[in-house]
Amino acid sequence: MTSPRFHVTYRITPDDSRPIEAHAKDICIEETVEIPEDCVPAGHWKAGIVGIVENIAERPGTPTDYDVRISYRTDIANDAIPNLLNVLFGNISIRRGIKIVDLQLTEAQLKAFGGPRFGIDGLRRDLNVHGRPLATTAIKPLGLSSKELARLCGGYARGGLDVIKDDHGLIDQHFHPFEERVSRIQEEIRAANAKTGGITHYYPMIAGRFDQVEAHVAYAKSAGCYGVLVPPMLIGPDTGFHLARKYDLAVMTHPTFTGTHFHDPRHGMTPAILLGRLFRIFGADISVFPNSGGRFTFSHEECQDLASALREPLGGLKGCFPSPAGGMTIEKVGAMVDAFGTDTALLIGGALLRYSPDPEVSARAFRTALEAAVAARKETVQ
Amino acid sequence: MTSPRFHVTYRITPDDSRPIEAHAKDICIEETVEIPEDCVPAGHWKAGIVGIVENIAERPGTPTDYDVRISYRTDIANDAIPNLLNVLFGNISIRRGIKIVDLQLTEAQLKAFGGPRFGIDGLRRDLNVHGRPLATTAIKPLGLSSKELARLCGGYARGGLDVIKDDHGLIDQHFHPFEERVSRIQEEIRAANAKTGGITHYYPMIAGRFDQVEAHVAYAKSAGCYGVLVPPMLIGPDTGFHLARKYDLAVMTHPTFTGTHFHDPRHGMTPAILLGRLFRIFGADISVFPNSGGRFTFSHEECQDLASALREPLGGLKGCFPSPAGGMTIEKVGAMVDAFGTDTALLIGGALLRYSPDPEVSARAFRTALEAAVAARKETVQ
Repeated sequence: MTSPRFHVTYRITPDDSRPIEAHAKDICIEETVEIPEDCVPAGHWKAGIVGIVENIAERPGTPTDYDVRISYRTDIANDAIPNLLNVLFGNISIRRGIKIVDLQLTEAQLKAFGGPRFGIDGLRRDLNVHGRPLATTAIKPLGLSSKELARLCGGYARGGLDVIKDDHGLIDQHFHPFEERVSRIQEEIRAANAKTGGITHYYPMIAGRFDQVEAHVAYAKSAGCYGVLVPPMLIGPDTGFHLARKYDLAVMTHPTFTGTHFHDPRHGMTPAILLGRLFRIFGADISVFPNSGGRFTFSHEECQDLASALREPLGGLKGCFPSPAGGMTIEKVGAMVDAFGTDTALLIGGALLRYSPDPEVSARAFRTALEAAVAARKETVQ
Repeated sequence: MTSPRFHVTYRITPDDSRPIEAHAKDICIEETVEIPEDCVPAGHWKAGIVGIVENIAERPGTPTDYDVRISYRTDIANDAIPNLLNVLFGNISIRRGIKIVDLQLTEAQLKAFGGPRFGIDGLRRDLNVHGRPLATTAIKPLGLSSKELARLCGGYARGGLDVIKDDHGLIDQHFHPFEERVSRIQEEIRAANAKTGGITHYYPMIAGRFDQVEAHVAYAKSAGCYGVLVPPMLIGPDTGFHLARKYDLAVMTHPTFTGTHFHDPRHGMTPAILLGRLFRIFGADISVFPNSGGRFTFSHEECQDLASALREPLGGLKGCFPSPAGGMTIEKVGAMVDAFGTDTALLIGGALLRYSPDPEVSARAFRTALEAAVAARKETVQ
């Protein structure tokens, strides 16, 4: 009768005078049986179908909040991403003052979700890049022709960037239809790789309708792309991970449309949980996030916690590259390497456009700054 | 060169001392070209590819906020749900102080997305219910056997409920596997309809993995279900609407995992925009939401605005039933009818379990209360 259970820590800031135990029990019921407590069948309590409060820890500070650890039966979440999210934060997303700050799945769950297919070591092997962060960019802006975008990519590849992704706004618009864009870009990159002997990977954006996404992923595979750029909240939390696994492609996740989880420190999930722990468990090899000091709102500490969640030991799962982005520049490379270390996919987008009209020159400057930063860091470490 | 444009009103609460014009321009760039302003190609400005600030209106109150109306080219959103959401609230979801309070698509966009397939009039025709709200319930709790759930449904159907939906936690768990549950429940309801001469529709929950959802929808259709319960944020904003359209099924939307948009009045989208305007445009025939006075956080005014967004004239789109839910009881039926009027799908879930151990008795009490409320309302109106 005892089923395995997984554990979630909710940081609860009560918005009324009821005791914390009542708030904790609300979550246990709302995320499972969703009926008045006195209607729960007796057998359901015994079988542990209702969530169980495992621990309540008051935290110092004002207002008072509490870290409440709740366990759920794993067979309710069913090793499926939509189910798991439904149990973690389904209806209670429509309350207030509930923040997921920790999540501990069982070994069996981690194994079932699978985590990164390639991971940090796999990407390093296939890119032949060791001992330094990856140099990554996004091609932009939306509205250029496929030919112009491909020209940029050729320059970036010749200049030595490791990873090129579509800007997340490039979907299947008539300016740059998906198949035309992907084939032209991949061909330019292939030609550049052949010329330089280097290796550059391309990740096209997958954000079509339900009836398009699989064809797009299959096309990316057939065109020779190494991976795909997946926006879980635009196409469905399961969709992109599922398709990348099916077609043996690496996954770079994009945080578009996730942000309402983060802006309120008292509600939602932390970046480390959603863009870190969960996206890694679901299969991200690289997780893009808005770095502190750019155009967005994450703090330095949140970014560090997120990077840790992507790289720390987690069952047998591979590590995932954190990819700090969002207003980064070549001038900031040193600080980014200091902050995130070498197992990082540094992403500089628009600033490469501004650096030089020649993408090859910009890419080379990025690589030079990267190698200088790594050398400086090694000296410091020695 | 002039392309059609659609309009979004963002309520901006600036979090720094920059002028509101700078905040407005940030959105125009971030949601389209996503590069530094000085890198935007001259032709892009001329072609209107960057968002355009159409109006800025300061609102009275503290802190000062502004309603900023921004237009985008329709061919950037591409008449696809993932694209549209990406343009509306992609990266800016990761900022602060930006709330979508209005959205005006073009007639061509409304036509392309299509809206409800059946709508209020279609559902009334097929249920043969006129002049009163629909009586709706959710079957629960998760963890009962399919047989027990089916027994409840038979009683609810004999007692005269119009619409029965799965509780949103019922997915494809081994307690009640999807196909077994759907076939047993639909068979019980068919038998009840045959016995009473009434009409009850059943909407099973669609929340499987990417490779399961279409099979589930197809199965629901083949079993004779009238519609499906769709959680857009769990399976992808486009997925359920797309499949329901393909299989000619009605759509009831569920708000699970949407709530981080709503809890902060200064960031996200209003319930009227996401659960109202957008879900209706995407194809909801019934939109479930947590009513004020229950277990959740929506205010009376937010619920009224949401109901209006579902029913007001909108191009040639059909109307969608608002379905207030979340802690509703038979005692509250009168107040709910007063608040929402007759074009409403009143949803009472757990309270029916508590009312009587016999689901037929509970259902009959719900219908009786409903008819009394409608009669009282007619008297008041006369």
